[in-house]
Amino acid sequence: MKHRACLLKEFSKPLVIEEVQTPTLKPYEVLIKVLAAGICHSDLHLWLGDFVPQGLPKKLPIVLSHEVVGEVVDVGEGVPSSFRRGMKVLVYPWQYVEEDQLTIRGFTQLARKRLRLGIDVDGGLQEYLVSNYKFLVGVEGFEDIPALAPLGCAALTTYRAVKKAGAFVGPDDYVVLVGLGGLGSYAAQWIKLLMPYTRLVGVDVRDEAIEFVSKVVNVDVAINASREDPTKVLNELTGGLGVKAVVDLVGSPEIVSKYVNIVDTLGIYVLVGHMGRVEVPIPRPRIIRNEITITGSYTGSLSDQYEVVSLARKGLLKYREVVTKRYKFEEVNEAFNTLKEGKVVGRQVVLIT
Amino acid sequence: MKHRACLLKEFSKPLVIEEVQTPTLKPYEVLIKVLAAGICHSDLHLWLGDFVPQGLPKKLPIVLSHEVVGEVVDVGEGVPSSFRRGMKVLVYPWQYVEEDQLTIRGFTQLARKRLRLGIDVDGGLQEYLVSNYKFLVGVEGFEDIPALAPLGCAALTTYRAVKKAGAFVGPDDYVVLVGLGGLGSYAAQWIKLLMPYTRLVGVDVRDEAIEFVSKVVNVDVAINASREDPTKVLNELTGGLGVKAVVDLVGSPEIVSKYVNIVDTLGIYVLVGHMGRVEVPIPRPRIIRNEITITGSYTGSLSDQYEVVSLARKGLLKYREVVTKRYKFEEVNEAFNTLKEGKVVGRQVVLIT
Amino acid sequence: MKHRACLLKEFSKPLVIEEVQTPTLKPYEVLIKVLAAGICHSDLHLWLGDFVPQGLPKKLPIVLSHEVVGEVVDVGEGVPSSFRRGMKVLVYPWQYVEEDQLTIRGFTQLARKRLRLGIDVDGGLQEYLVSNYKFLVGVEGFEDIPALAPLGCAALTTYRAVKKAGAFVGPDDYVVLVGLGGLGSYAAQWIKLLMPYTRLVGVDVRDEAIEFVSKVVNVDVAINASREDPTKVLNELTGGLGVKAVVDLVGSPEIVSKYVNIVDTLGIYVLVGHMGRVEVPIPRPRIIRNEITITGSYTGSLSDQYEVVSLARKGLLKYREVVTKRYKFEEVNEAFNTLKEGKVVGRQVVLIT
Amino acid sequence: MKHRACLLKEFSKPLVIEEVQTPTLKPYEVLIKVLAAGICHSDLHLWLGDFVPQGLPKKLPIVLSHEVVGEVVDVGEGVPSSFRRGMKVLVYPWQYVEEDQLTIRGFTQLARKRLRLGIDVDGGLQEYLVSNYKFLVGVEGFEDIPALAPLGCAALTTYRAVKKAGAFVGPDDYVVLVGLGGLGSYAAQWIKLLMPYTRLVGVDVRDEAIEFVSKVVNVDVAINASREDPTKVLNELTGGLGVKAVVDLVGSPEIVSKYVNIVDTLGIYVLVGHMGRVEVPIPRPRIIRNEITITGSYTGSLSDQYEVVSLARKGLLKYREVVTKRYKFEEVNEAFNTLKEGKVVGRQVVLIT
Repeated sequence: MKHRACLLKEFSKPLVIEEVQTPTLKPYEVLIKVLAAGICHSDLHLWLGDFVPQGLPKKLPIVLSHEVVGEVVDVGEGVPSSFRRGMKVLVYPWQYVEEDQLTIRGFTQLARKRLRLGIDVDGGLQEYLVSNYKFLVGVEGFEDIPALAPLGCAALTTYRAVKKAGAFVGPDDYVVLVGLGGLGSYAAQWIKLLMPYTRLVGVDVRDEAIEFVSKVVNVDVAINASREDPTKVLNELTGGLGVKAVVDLVGSPEIVSKYVNIVDTLGIYVLVGHMGRVEVPIPRPRIIRNEITITGSYTGSLSDQYEVVSLARKGLLKYREVVTKRYKFEEVNEAFNTLKEGKVVGRQVVLIT
Repeated sequence: MKHRACLLKEFSKPLVIEEVQTPTLKPYEVLIKVLAAGICHSDLHLWLGDFVPQGLPKKLPIVLSHEVVGEVVDVGEGVPSSFRRGMKVLVYPWQYVEEDQLTIRGFTQLARKRLRLGIDVDGGLQEYLVSNYKFLVGVEGFEDIPALAPLGCAALTTYRAVKKAGAFVGPDDYVVLVGLGGLGSYAAQWIKLLMPYTRLVGVDVRDEAIEFVSKVVNVDVAINASREDPTKVLNELTGGLGVKAVVDLVGSPEIVSKYVNIVDTLGIYVLVGHMGRVEVPIPRPRIIRNEITITGSYTGSLSDQYEVVSLARKGLLKYREVVTKRYKFEEVNEAFNTLKEGKVVGRQVVLIT
Repeated sequence: MKHRACLLKEFSKPLVIEEVQTPTLKPYEVLIKVLAAGICHSDLHLWLGDFVPQGLPKKLPIVLSHEVVGEVVDVGEGVPSSFRRGMKVLVYPWQYVEEDQLTIRGFTQLARKRLRLGIDVDGGLQEYLVSNYKFLVGVEGFEDIPALAPLGCAALTTYRAVKKAGAFVGPDDYVVLVGLGGLGSYAAQWIKLLMPYTRLVGVDVRDEAIEFVSKVVNVDVAINASREDPTKVLNELTGGLGVKAVVDLVGSPEIVSKYVNIVDTLGIYVLVGHMGRVEVPIPRPRIIRNEITITGSYTGSLSDQYEVVSLARKGLLKYREVVTKRYKFEEVNEAFNTLKEGKVVGRQVVLIT
Repeated sequence: MKHRACLLKEFSKPLVIEEVQTPTLKPYEVLIKVLAAGICHSDLHLWLGDFVPQGLPKKLPIVLSHEVVGEVVDVGEGVPSSFRRGMKVLVYPWQYVEEDQLTIRGFTQLARKRLRLGIDVDGGLQEYLVSNYKFLVGVEGFEDIPALAPLGCAALTTYRAVKKAGAFVGPDDYVVLVGLGGLGSYAAQWIKLLMPYTRLVGVDVRDEAIEFVSKVVNVDVAINASREDPTKVLNELTGGLGVKAVVDLVGSPEIVSKYVNIVDTLGIYVLVGHMGRVEVPIPRPRIIRNEITITGSYTGSLSDQYEVVSLARKGLLKYREVVTKRYKFEEVNEAFNTLKEGKVVGRQVVLIT
């Protein structure tokens, strides 16, 4: 059997749709007809070859996209009977080669031998995909299946990061979210859902990003950092005490080293974004004397993935509002170019079949 | 009533012993005859005026030393009857002006309005001291009371830091301790006590410090960083995975930025020491992709203080071995000069009365 | 100085309002003019002498009520300057004689030597009351001060119990609340606030209690246990898996031993209520094989008290709707009689001054 | 291929060794030559048919024993290359049919569809066994492989239970272990290893069990409950405060309902053993007023299993001393009869090949 796949053959050059061999099913695998695949900022970087110094992608040509929803069309012999043809699924993209001591404790996304869709192996920009059954999360009961694709990365990553922050935040505290836009509009929703008692401070340098998120969720204090100094505003708001958590979706050294200074005693700074130089300076005395914690958060676990889907199913995440652009499979290069030009606020999804 | 106190009147100049007024007791206060007071590295810095840019000490003249053991000689009217004359006590030095939302949750050392002995107010280098009863921990049942003085800072600070690290460490993991010597000899003992299953890697640049700690506790792997690169050794030892925890009693930017790179997935880096520049660069991508945590640990809570004393009383901390030098009250300047010359391995205690 | 106090002199007999001596202030104490005092079910039991077998009340005559709001009218010399005359405060009622190793870790309500208002010492049914400053929580910024009284017990107790349950509950889980009415209407609100993703199942045997709570908060599934078997309903709802948490405000042996059987793997049963025989049978095999936890929750800590007040101030707790009856000081016996007759749904407050 | 297996065909009748069909390997499975299989008390109950009311064993005939060590002799095509022929392994017995939301969070032993060796499916009393690779833990580097068999149940179960208790215990606390003998000798070791600062109180009604455990590990206080009342002894020892944890390997209603009364504020009672009636009465008021927790602990997770093996490998568990009797495969009925007669102190292992 053959199917059409969108191949990255050469960095920065147009992606090519070609016929490829559909893999045969191993015992615990499921064959999935891809319905939609999301385009993430990291797809853009992979396409441009920005991650080559880090050894990514692992192979060329590669099929990009790690945000995948589809329909079960065939199952291997060892797959539990709960997986049936016609069933709609989200594919958890943070897969791995084999179980290890991290995966058996639930830290699936931190597996020693990662096999991430669209990064280490072929991803969602193709008509068919195979996956071990255990990485498939049923998405029955949703009205808009294609809009679920970003739940595999954008919504998942922010969910885990916000949960990490949440453990440090009480009823009287402020939470700062750095970076609005697509990722930020999920993060802002998680903050308001998981910490309904906190005051959300949203920071961005783009007015359109602030506006976009503000339409989806109530941002208590919005700061355009190109016009105002957020640390000054926050010092005033908190009487100099600072905030209990920063969720930083940008992560540039300038932002981190400055914003750590408005984290209050026993507060947390969650690093998610990868912008700018890799060396980030932090102020040691403040961290020690106030017992501040800085931690990284990477995508999410399979268990987090189930939670994200459940919350969306209950109507507690506005997932449709965040998907602002849908492309046909044939228009995939347009999606990448638009993203490259920085014109996208919200998330983009490619409709495959 | 008057008593003799050792005053810091001018930075770097010899301390002067003079008669001062003994404060009268407020209702919840206890009058303590000081038996011994420890000399900490931060006392040296206070004496030299190194902390003036940070606004410390809060006043001049000041009586230094925050490591104090003594005997109850009088009690205020509101003091519980369990405090009796003749009772030996350790004075918890991380006191504060008033209760706040941090202290009522047990984070006494992080109080909003700190009143630290020997830093914000007069400390232990004097014959008499008053303290609210609730900061006094009974030390009956010990053979060597003066050697307990450092339990208020050196043993306490390392205890809290090691407990923070312990939450991240399992049976197969390595723990790295940076900085042996006095503080390190408590830390090494706590690591072996609280994580008896872990392999302890001790790092220092001084052979005498490595030897000193190795006599007190079994260091599984000792590395002199002036001759060997610890990150290389640890990469080899762990097959490239790294260690689960670093307890860093030094904290220089060079050490932190380098050693974070050998922290394994879900590991922790605990900052305790304050050496060198305050801006410490950390590698963001490794922290994110492996969900590494960096946190500060500051002295210890009153509850930690009780635990430290209990463990010492049970013979689980060799506290006498760490105190390598005892001075008479009149020799106090010698203690500071010896410390300044970098000749001290272990801790120094001044016998007051 | 003298003031009027409502005295319990003889069990089950009418309470008497008499003049008593106003205590003089100790250094850390504050004199409070009582504005309102709530009447709790335990006040009824104290009045009737039901707790005499447990040694309560500790003395006779006693002034009942542990739910107290008032105004600062005088401060002792050691009281921080943030406490000023005219300031409105809630008095944290779970006070104690002296600090101990539980209180210094934040478990104030579990102090070794408890000094609970209206139980161990005189409580709120009097014109003036003294309290150590650290047990006073400012309640500026509220419209209806008297309606805040129950925040010291009813709202606090349910807050802590719900937080304990919350640690076990995820997005797909059900939470069962046993006992609606006054206490239950706070609990239901906390469940919806702290676990907005969970489905709340409310159980009671009184239709009026179910109706009352349903007006304040959205109860997803309401069961009148006198007509339907809640375990049967819940087994059907959860496909036999059960619920993740039960918050039991009743606590009778019949309820506990039955409802534990619908707690799912890794779930929790929080005991709050004291109805019926003290020996409660639990099914050992289910508890072991599914690692179920049963725990008690007792009032709340001082830190919980601050959180409760903050959440109410932010409008996240409908506290006014729960107070259904207000009495004048002179009508205090009517309040007790009405409660005795079982006619109260919601909470009762006595306006003192 | 065929091999010899020991079959339970009829309850209480001698087990029969017969030739059976060796299963063929599925892709992720490993064929294991069984070296030794432990005999647990639950094997005795299965043999006697005691668990028939609970629906166990799931089938007849069945091969008993869930404590299995063996050697890899063949691997399926999907098994990672780290599994090689000749490799010695412990088989984690708490297997399951398929991944679910509990297993992906690391709670493998609590899987919705359990497939426990020797209980739900054939276990270790046979020459060959197949298992999914992910349930195999390498046991290279041990001197005595057969003595490792009980690490799959007895050592694992007590490890998890002690870890649960450990979270509640501080430096000044007592831990009570109810039930010495085989299981107890592992538990006592874990208590001393994981809480080296605690005082261990061992309780049993058999002098020989007390002696047996006392040879393996230092029991601080040993109480023969047939001669002394442990609650009285412990009340005296703790000045009426009680102990912070009870690990109960017996679990009879009489013991639980009595011993809960000596659990101190914020303490825990861990239920492990299944003796006697299933309904266990607990004292509600004490549980509420002191916030005591009662919880079940069931075997251990796969992650716990790795930890148990690591600790034994490091010499931190005396595993050989606990195995007091070894039988040949042909003597298997003798092993069951000896256990039935109550003559066994320590654990029994059957050497298969």
